Amino acid sequence: MKALVYHGPGRRAWEDVPDPVIKDPTDAIVAVETTTICGTDLHILKGDVPAVTDGRVLGHEGVGVVTAVGPACEKVKVGDRVIISCITKCGTCEYCIAGLTSHCQTVGGIGWIFGHLIDGTQAEFVRVPFADNGLIPLPEGVTAEQGTMLSDILPTGYEIGVLNGAVSSGDVVAVVGVGPVGLAAVMTAAAAGAASIIAVDANKFRLEQSREFGATDTIDVAAGGDVVAELRARSRGGLGVDVAIEAVGLPVTFGVALDSVRPGGHVANVGVHGESVEFPIERDWINNLTITTGLVNATTAPELLEGIRRGEIAPEKFITHRFGFDEFDKAYDTFANAADEHALKVIISK
Amino acid sequence: MKALVYHGPGRRAWEDVPDPVIKDPTDAIVAVETTTICGTDLHILKGDVPAVTDGRVLGHEGVGVVTAVGPACEKVKVGDRVIISCITKCGTCEYCIAGLTSHCQTVGGIGWIFGHLIDGTQAEFVRVPFADNGLIPLPEGVTAEQGTMLSDILPTGYEIGVLNGAVSSGDVVAVVGVGPVGLAAVMTAAAAGAASIIAVDANKFRLEQSREFGATDTIDVAAGGDVVAELRARSRGGLGVDVAIEAVGLPVTFGVALDSVRPGGHVANVGVHGESVEFPIERDWINNLTITTGLVNATTAPELLEGIRRGEIAPEKFITHRFGFDEFDKAYDTFANAADEHALKVIISK
Repeated sequence: MKALVYHGPGRRAWEDVPDPVIKDPTDAIVAVETTTICGTDLHILKGDVPAVTDGRVLGHEGVGVVTAVGPACEKVKVGDRVIISCITKCGTCEYCIAGLTSHCQTVGGIGWIFGHLIDGTQAEFVRVPFADNGLIPLPEGVTAEQGTMLSDILPTGYEIGVLNGAVSSGDVVAVVGVGPVGLAAVMTAAAAGAASIIAVDANKFRLEQSREFGATDTIDVAAGGDVVAELRARSRGGLGVDVAIEAVGLPVTFGVALDSVRPGGHVANVGVHGESVEFPIERDWINNLTITTGLVNATTAPELLEGIRRGEIAPEKFITHRFGFDEFDKAYDTFANAADEHALKVIISK
Repeated sequence: MKALVYHGPGRRAWEDVPDPVIKDPTDAIVAVETTTICGTDLHILKGDVPAVTDGRVLGHEGVGVVTAVGPACEKVKVGDRVIISCITKCGTCEYCIAGLTSHCQTVGGIGWIFGHLIDGTQAEFVRVPFADNGLIPLPEGVTAEQGTMLSDILPTGYEIGVLNGAVSSGDVVAVVGVGPVGLAAVMTAAAAGAASIIAVDANKFRLEQSREFGATDTIDVAAGGDVVAELRARSRGGLGVDVAIEAVGLPVTFGVALDSVRPGGHVANVGVHGESVEFPIERDWINNLTITTGLVNATTAPELLEGIRRGEIAPEKFITHRFGFDEFDKAYDTFANAADEHALKVIISK
């Protein structure tokens, strides 16, 4: 089969590799119909994730059709059309039982293994361990493209942004950074009943898009104003926002989130960070803050599918560019220059 | 009357001051029977809390008898024996309604005003604003000394340590620092059903005491070992503790709490900090942590009184030294040298 293979920092190729086969009785093989590229894939290509080694097939999102199942699979059947969850989970360890599948102990303590520790979904076929837990039937009326947005990005924005941030009806929510995952937080915060959602970014295209996703207000960082003061000015009583969702991964954006939240507020970190941040706890020890971090559990896909049915979640809004499997290079180049290309998520289809 | 008056950094005196009088219809006057000294009072005396000005009567804890009530008091009556809550709360602002009385907007956004922005409880009499909300009837069978531990220290350990940390049945809990507030966290974590409670301190007396409060294990920092490694070794599967409660207020102890918690764990900060800390979010963005901070709401006094009735909460264990009102100087000197004096909480009684 063909697959997108990592060959060390800066090097990738759509090339021939052996077809995956069932290794464990709980495995399934899925013929990939659609996949996409995540910011994490770009990090890997920069060499930022040393656990990813030469020869690894990348990707952890996608929709496809099951072509083979191991003898221990009870739910998944050949011919099923499925969403491939980005998280691999045994379903029986202490963490999985507690709903923290992101830290499944059976697969090594981090549930994200596709395109990381095992071969991923940017391929014609992919082996899916614990397939009964990791494959979600694609309902009638949901397209493969829509389903692909439920592998990772929508659950991440919802679980790590909105649910961790405890967004509730009537809240004023700041989303700091409205790249794809920030937009996923905007869309799911709107569905959760936030009264106002303020999108903060330096990119005009993303800020414009954020309104389509449910933002009620935008702050353009490039305009040079005092972002924290502008957020506070838009909050109830000027006390600060109820929830600040950090979706960039830089000290400065984490600082904006922390500085703009009110006493009793929540800072939900979604961004992937490369360096430590300063926490002014001499100011905040008294402020009854809750700060959360996290990798997605991807356990909310059923809830998000229901949101699609109700018309509250519209995954198709993420998709700005479409490519064929023979255009993987172009897809990566487009996504790597997302700001200039006005790209949100790119879809690559067989 | 006599009161303990602050006269700028390092200067205090038990001296004559005017008797307090009803100013607002919701006020009451309480004749103080017992009071105590908090670590915060020592901070004030060092000049660390500039909002406290020359002439302020200190103290925010105590039990007494109501001697006068304003015309708007509906619950509190003259002659009632009451616990004085350390938090003053209007009961009607957005924060009070949400249970975040610590940030009552009516009293200025921080509910701790006794011995801070208004005269406090280290006096023969004290004016209590919003008396219906801030005075808790002392039940039969609970002594004034026990009740005084419910003004601040036990609710702080419970609400900001145990409840914010989401301590639940079976958890492994580290309490970093077992001064009085750390011990309050130990006692209430035990009542909440923690499976093991590991006390961490450099003071042998406090570590010994912690076992009386419910600690199942102790780590003596003065022994020079790797505290984080020792905490992890005592956790389920070596993955880290479920909850780490920081009850010191230093970067090093905050670091121990953060480093010793497992993926999905909680760090509950109780300590009052004077400088910022480093948050290694490049490590922890993926660890599904929850970090909380906070000033006590002091809304759990009824629950803690019920704990006393059931024998799970024993406030008398905090009281190591007793003084009369004419011995305030000695009481302060003893508490300021708590480690050498083997003091936990000191009681000063009329």
